[in-house]
Amino acid sequence: MVQIPKQPVPSSPAPPAVPTSADVARLAGVSRATVSYVLNNTSAVRISEPTRRRVHEAAKELGYVPHAAARSLRAGHSRMVLMPSPNVPAGPLYSRFLSELQWALSRLDYTVVQYGGIGLDRDEAARAWAELRPVAVIVPGGGLGAEGVHVLKRSGARAVVTLGSERVEGAHALLLDQDGVGHSVGVHLLARGRRRVGVVMPEEPGLEFFSTPRLQGVRRALEGTDATVTELPLAYEEDSAARLAGRWRSLGLDSVFAYNDEYAMLLMRALQDEGVDIPRETAVVGADDLMLGRLLRPRLSTVHIELPSGRDLAELVDRAVRDPGGEPEVHEVFGARIVHRESS
Amino acid sequence: MVQIPKQPVPSSPAPPAVPTSADVARLAGVSRATVSYVLNNTSAVRISEPTRRRVHEAAKELGYVPHAAARSLRAGHSRMVLMPSPNVPAGPLYSRFLSELQWALSRLDYTVVQYGGIGLDRDEAARAWAELRPVAVIVPGGGLGAEGVHVLKRSGARAVVTLGSERVEGAHALLLDQDGVGHSVGVHLLARGRRRVGVVMPEEPGLEFFSTPRLQGVRRALEGTDATVTELPLAYEEDSAARLAGRWRSLGLDSVFAYNDEYAMLLMRALQDEGVDIPRETAVVGADDLMLGRLLRPRLSTVHIELPSGRDLAELVDRAVRDPGGEPEVHEVFGARIVHRESS
Repeated sequence: MVQIPKQPVPSSPAPPAVPTSADVARLAGVSRATVSYVLNNTSAVRISEPTRRRVHEAAKELGYVPHAAARSLRAGHSRMVLMPSPNVPAGPLYSRFLSELQWALSRLDYTVVQYGGIGLDRDEAARAWAELRPVAVIVPGGGLGAEGVHVLKRSGARAVVTLGSERVEGAHALLLDQDGVGHSVGVHLLARGRRRVGVVMPEEPGLEFFSTPRLQGVRRALEGTDATVTELPLAYEEDSAARLAGRWRSLGLDSVFAYNDEYAMLLMRALQDEGVDIPRETAVVGADDLMLGRLLRPRLSTVHIELPSGRDLAELVDRAVRDPGGEPEVHEVFGARIVHRESS
Repeated sequence: MVQIPKQPVPSSPAPPAVPTSADVARLAGVSRATVSYVLNNTSAVRISEPTRRRVHEAAKELGYVPHAAARSLRAGHSRMVLMPSPNVPAGPLYSRFLSELQWALSRLDYTVVQYGGIGLDRDEAARAWAELRPVAVIVPGGGLGAEGVHVLKRSGARAVVTLGSERVEGAHALLLDQDGVGHSVGVHLLARGRRRVGVVMPEEPGLEFFSTPRLQGVRRALEGTDATVTELPLAYEEDSAARLAGRWRSLGLDSVFAYNDEYAMLLMRALQDEGVDIPRETAVVGADDLMLGRLLRPRLSTVHIELPSGRDLAELVDRAVRDPGGEPEVHEVFGARIVHRESS
């Protein structure tokens, strides 16, 4: 690891004074209220063009920037939408959704702030978010309970939206049907004549919010048939995959749902190195429909997942902020369909 | 795309009143100052245990949460460290660095806030960040100029740290030597007897901050030799790779630096589909040392990149916050070394 050398901290001199709106008012020769009207572009008050210009020039000369927190204290609420960062690195699919959402919220004049709640439990995290007084909070997958929603609302959040498999009391919910991902794979494998299905369960923490409902979905698809499901714990490491591949034939499986495309690539390589013929001996299916699946040989079968549009979610947030007393909205917003290629 | 149905927004009823510290004081029968002392855990003032308990119970009953912005207005500065989100999706390497940094800053009692500045130019972005009055700002790759640093400092930011190939006046700099990544590849290919080197230049916007200095590094390594460099524009799409592979033999190259491991996987597959023998006809080298490179056949040669430790950067931020008048620190914090596998 490259080191940054440690250096002693000298006793701190006073930092330079930060210019305030009072300084701007003094330099421009106007009242503080006028400064506020001009810089916040209020149309309710008529202010002459020369005065406007004087205020802008004074602000520029002093390097004055309005204080968002002070403005929100005056207004009684902020335009800040808080999105806690997910605990797992976001994949390409989710990253694109987030950036579309940020863009759409910016267009509606909200400031989007992402906040890492690492190491906090659910209710502590909600309290930390509440201290920032966001006007709305969007929480991905499992990070919030009913108590947390209550804390946020009591601190002035007008809208709390969760993205996950389950509803949380008091919050708007976009239901992401992870169960449906597994279900579509189960139906596909049954139709291809497979009966002994392995399901990869990643050992990395944080992924159980996705893997557990996906496993349930596979089970649901196979219910009432003679097909069986075998859980296969797997770490995202070559060694772990090699060990699983080494005992593959003793498991007697004819197919595997590998959780997602990246785990599928890892496992497929290990199986091929063991001489397992794909798909003849074992069918392999991933999920997420990443490009890498098309680059593998045989080409990887996968599940194409549709997230809601960031713009629709931004509009839901805006609607909820303007009508904080409304009934929580619940929408099922997940599309899952199998993409059949060569590996199954 | 799954649609969220639009719904009319009824006229907004007044939201419920947010409890303030005055409400807590009233319920507990103490002064507002006492509430503040107790909830901010001030050790300078002695307050009896029963009083403390009364304040905590009243706060809990009312659902009162302190207001971070109000607290920072009183204190004159915040504990917020702002990190603008990069414009390109963060890869796994950078994601891990960010989460380590967030964790380390949280341990030093800073609140880390990520902020998307999508669609803003550099100086506008700095002004938007300044409105949040962060105590420190950490800016990745090329997002900030000297004017922006000035705006941030005038609005009270005690430390501005840039992560990139170049210094910005007035800011602390962690220099990420992208040039060195390309240089290590150039030296490696020369040593393997290659003389006609292609360099992939991704067409996706935002990546030029990385690809341009990497290209320079390859050129620098080949200077004074008879080797040549050919730039190869490539979009991260199968079609684009197939077109490049289709005219590969007319280019007369014996090697290619594919920008990173993901572009290398894309290009290597297209070259193999054209029957190009790797590495005999063409050596391929990626960068980032992702696991997928070890899963390819032939196994991918790559550049292992070491980012600075998140903890070291957190300590630099803390040092700079405590000594805002100090000289900007400049550290070269990037390690690049070639990992030679089968593809070169």
